[in-house]
Amino acid sequence: MTRRPFDLSLYLVTDPALVRGRPLEAVVAAAVDGGATLVQLRDKTADTGALIATAARLLDVLRPRGVPLVINDRVDVALAVGADGVHVGQSDMPAATVRRLLGEHAIVGLSVTREAELAAVDPAVVDYLGVGPVFATATKADAAAPLDDATIRRIVAASRLPTVGIGGIHAGNAGRPRALGLDGIAVVSAVCAAADPGAAARSLRAAFA
Amino acid sequence: MTRRPFDLSLYLVTDPALVRGRPLEAVVAAAVDGGATLVQLRDKTADTGALIATAARLLDVLRPRGVPLVINDRVDVALAVGADGVHVGQSDMPAATVRRLLGEHAIVGLSVTREAELAAVDPAVVDYLGVGPVFATATKADAAAPLDDATIRRIVAASRLPTVGIGGIHAGNAGRPRALGLDGIAVVSAVCAAADPGAAARSLRAAFA
Repeated sequence: MTRRPFDLSLYLVTDPALVRGRPLEAVVAAAVDGGATLVQLRDKTADTGALIATAARLLDVLRPRGVPLVINDRVDVALAVGADGVHVGQSDMPAATVRRLLGEHAIVGLSVTREAELAAVDPAVVDYLGVGPVFATATKADAAAPLDDATIRRIVAASRLPTVGIGGIHAGNAGRPRALGLDGIAVVSAVCAAADPGAAARSLRAAFA
Repeated sequence: MTRRPFDLSLYLVTDPALVRGRPLEAVVAAAVDGGATLVQLRDKTADTGALIATAARLLDVLRPRGVPLVINDRVDVALAVGADGVHVGQSDMPAATVRRLLGEHAIVGLSVTREAELAAVDPAVVDYLGVGPVFATATKADAAAPLDDATIRRIVAASRLPTVGIGGIHAGNAGRPRALGLDGIAVVSAVCAAADPGAAARSLRAAFA
């Protein structure tokens, strides 16, 4: 029951609407070369065929760089391309079903936005938790209100799993998720929308370290 | 390499927006009792968790009735609930990938809306073709213009696979798809929006037979 090793330090979540016409795989490659340690393909609007093609292009740039690719929500897309795992939210496929379909070696991540959701998390099924929003965010239209410091500390302490903070994180505020005990920071617009995604990744790594 | 037997005579495609507040599984059960021979769960807007729950409820009414359930587009949902197959369009997962992920016993359907799409159809991979639109339809916002009789006849003749017509079919016009050689009729609103889905299914069966 060996799971693939992964590093949550700088977790890049893609957003096709934010890359300003640049090829997504070029933005991702630059971000990884700047220090991104894990990449999640998130696209809630693309047709399945296009999503599979995008995932395959991302694997082409991530495999040589040794950085894992997880797919948001879509186990079918992950299976089609042989991605490293899937990240689900509370309204997506149950994490136990994701684990059953992907097998023991896959990376399975789960978003928690409230302390009460921890009770249903099975550490034998889930590899890491996405915790947030850490700050207010405009990237995710349906995002909840930001969590306060005490709540994040309690989630980190209670979870027994690696945690990555998400929501409104940028190089100017990345010290707070670190101080709260999170193992990494997940970013969307701070890298995807940056004029220089590699430099943005380097700044984020430095700010969190 | 035995595939599950299936009957395309009256193929019900679900649309959650058309059932007028009734439980989808009740509409489907009534339609099957009235003569629907195969059911496709199609819902392009639901969260994956809700889609899986709906699929499980449909299987609960379909298994005792011996009618297969195929899922539109989503191999992940089909795998999660153990549905009988998946139907894909030209922008969805490639049919060969669907077959690889679901295995030899699954039902794999593919939509064709133009004669030129037949060249890429592999009869070792695909079990049946959805052909249309047969008539103009308001149910599918992005539907193409209806195919003419000669085109449908050529697709039916060339395909070497069972075919089901779709698009604007109701009890008043179901004779034409029969005359064109199609093996069955697929309906959405003619059953889902009917005040009595069972009676609607009986009328459609009679009109096509």
